[in-house]
Amino acid sequence: MGCDVAALNTVHFSNHTGYRQVKGTKATAQEITELYDGLKQSYLTDFDVLLSGYAPSAAAVEAVGHIAFDLRQKAAKKPGSFFWVLDPVMGDQGRIYVSEDVVPAYKHIIPFADLVLPNQFEAELLSGIKITSLSNLADAITVIHRTYHVPHVIVTSVQLPSTISSSSSTISMSTADNSSSTQETRPETLTVIGSTSKSDGSPRIFKIEVPQLDCFFSGTGDMFAALTVARLREAVFVADSEGDNSNPPLRETAAWISPDTVPASQLPLAKATEKVLASMHGVLGKTMVERDAELARYPPDDEDTSSFTELPVAERKAALEKRAYLQQTKAAEVRLIRNANLLRHPNIKFRVEEWSPR
Amino acid sequence: MGCDVAALNTVHFSNHTGYRQVKGTKATAQEITELYDGLKQSYLTDFDVLLSGYAPSAAAVEAVGHIAFDLRQKAAKKPGSFFWVLDPVMGDQGRIYVSEDVVPAYKHIIPFADLVLPNQFEAELLSGIKITSLSNLADAITVIHRTYHVPHVIVTSVQLPSTISSSSSTISMSTADNSSSTQETRPETLTVIGSTSKSDGSPRIFKIEVPQLDCFFSGTGDMFAALTVARLREAVFVADSEGDNSNPPLRETAAWISPDTVPASQLPLAKATEKVLASMHGVLGKTMVERDAELARYPPDDEDTSSFTELPVAERKAALEKRAYLQQTKAAEVRLIRNANLLRHPNIKFRVEEWSPR
Repeated sequence: MGCDVAALNTVHFSNHTGYRQVKGTKATAQEITELYDGLKQSYLTDFDVLLSGYAPSAAAVEAVGHIAFDLRQKAAKKPGSFFWVLDPVMGDQGRIYVSEDVVPAYKHIIPFADLVLPNQFEAELLSGIKITSLSNLADAITVIHRTYHVPHVIVTSVQLPSTISSSSSTISMSTADNSSSTQETRPETLTVIGSTSKSDGSPRIFKIEVPQLDCFFSGTGDMFAALTVARLREAVFVADSEGDNSNPPLRETAAWISPDTVPASQLPLAKATEKVLASMHGVLGKTMVERDAELARYPPDDEDTSSFTELPVAERKAALEKRAYLQQTKAAEVRLIRNANLLRHPNIKFRVEEWSPR
Repeated sequence: MGCDVAALNTVHFSNHTGYRQVKGTKATAQEITELYDGLKQSYLTDFDVLLSGYAPSAAAVEAVGHIAFDLRQKAAKKPGSFFWVLDPVMGDQGRIYVSEDVVPAYKHIIPFADLVLPNQFEAELLSGIKITSLSNLADAITVIHRTYHVPHVIVTSVQLPSTISSSSSTISMSTADNSSSTQETRPETLTVIGSTSKSDGSPRIFKIEVPQLDCFFSGTGDMFAALTVARLREAVFVADSEGDNSNPPLRETAAWISPDTVPASQLPLAKATEKVLASMHGVLGKTMVERDAELARYPPDDEDTSSFTELPVAERKAALEKRAYLQQTKAAEVRLIRNANLLRHPNIKFRVEEWSPR
């Protein structure tokens, strides 16, 4: 995407945790701080954007917060010259998978962020609102805007009991493979809801729905966040080039907050999300095809006499099952690099729409 | 370049050491081995190519060697299915910048490598031959082939007293900015010499000369090595597609060693090196332009009254000098990402030639 990136690793793992086994080390808060101090002493902290993701402890979250705070202070005289995208990685599907003290640590640092990217469960943790409908999802976003003074929010991967029925009349799917689908075979949809607050703190909510692919992928949250960094900055520059010059340039406006006159569907955040989801849908679609081809290359277990034959029957069965799980996980690895053209040139199929919960 | 890469960091540094100050940590041999064990236990070691670079201790070099040996054993039944490119990072310009025991550690593991990429000084360390002419450079390459049984060698950045005069009649430079140059202003050339051994262990030597850019860049060795991985593999596949089928496919031949009938200039290694140097020359040329623009943006020290004014004059002078050095180093950072099109689509200007030292 053309972004020069200085990556500060918060873990050094052999693989992602979807494999259910991992070796390697986690960075301590002190190591994270040291690396940043190293950048600083050599005048290497002139970053336009910070993207922060998983941090392995509350202290590490605080260390990331200190980095962001320092970068924000440095940019204080030049509004818009620094932007922090914070992915508050705490859990998913109703389960916290970090230590409990990470949650208050995030609540402490989020007021310094410009954009937060919680999933549905993380939005519940941050807002204190149990999300069971699009209506109280809007409430949760409003609370996040107002409590943490975060101007931009995207809630990724919203799955609600009502999502499918509410979406049937609004979603516009033009995928070729969907043309022959019926009511019964229509894929489930995944809803992404975003908002940029107005000057009075009220939300401007937009919604995009994409067909959900029938596969469990790891790393899609990181993919979403990284693409959003590139596309949001791009959309802000586009807005400035198309603007009527009645306002100062958006890129020189604190936190890139569009004037109140800009409707939800025209927000740079909404435009960016359209492109991000288009790239992701393209890459994940390719991944599924390549996953199936890879799995087809493995011989079935009952024909594979070479493996684990020294083990007793029960243990051999367990070993084969474990290997099958690991192979399936590997086969579903997102094919990012080989489909980089879909990152650079997304084919936009799913359009953003404004959405008013009341 | 389309290669999916699993990066195993041997250091976690805030910046490269060209800044003369750095913070961060080095991976221990045990950490390196652990990460590889983590990959292995989840069936994630199906690599086509291993590229190894700087390792921070003799034990770390040995750990990298164990990884390569394990990957080689796993691929033993399928010749050509695994290839190890080893950059024996030990020193430069007559100076060893690793601890002394790293040198014998490299000598121990190099016999398992398929391609080694020493610079001139490292070629001297490995061969025991002081390189003062193209003739004894050829001797050094022959010794490396024969002593370590390494079939492919590229000696990067050769600078010899005789290089300029010997090159004037052979080099073909078509750069636009060189058209008006005279004998006096002709840039110095940088010579790259490579060889793939024949079945009797004798070398097939090729040479490429490129104009040397008047700038010190950091990381060009890593850039050369990484591009060589992608381009060599590509050249091997091209050779197979163009071959007459009288031999087994090169990509299924151990160490991708071309038949003895292939002349030096037609080696996949030579074709790859042409593309690599074309990409590098393009990216580094762009980097110089952008470096100059960046340096022009800094105010001169005597107009910059805001900095270090609290310091006594002598200390202020030292602080300004240090900052100027750091700014110059940053300004010369290779502009890789923004010129990725030059990596993918090199403009080949400098052609390989066969070279016989006798």
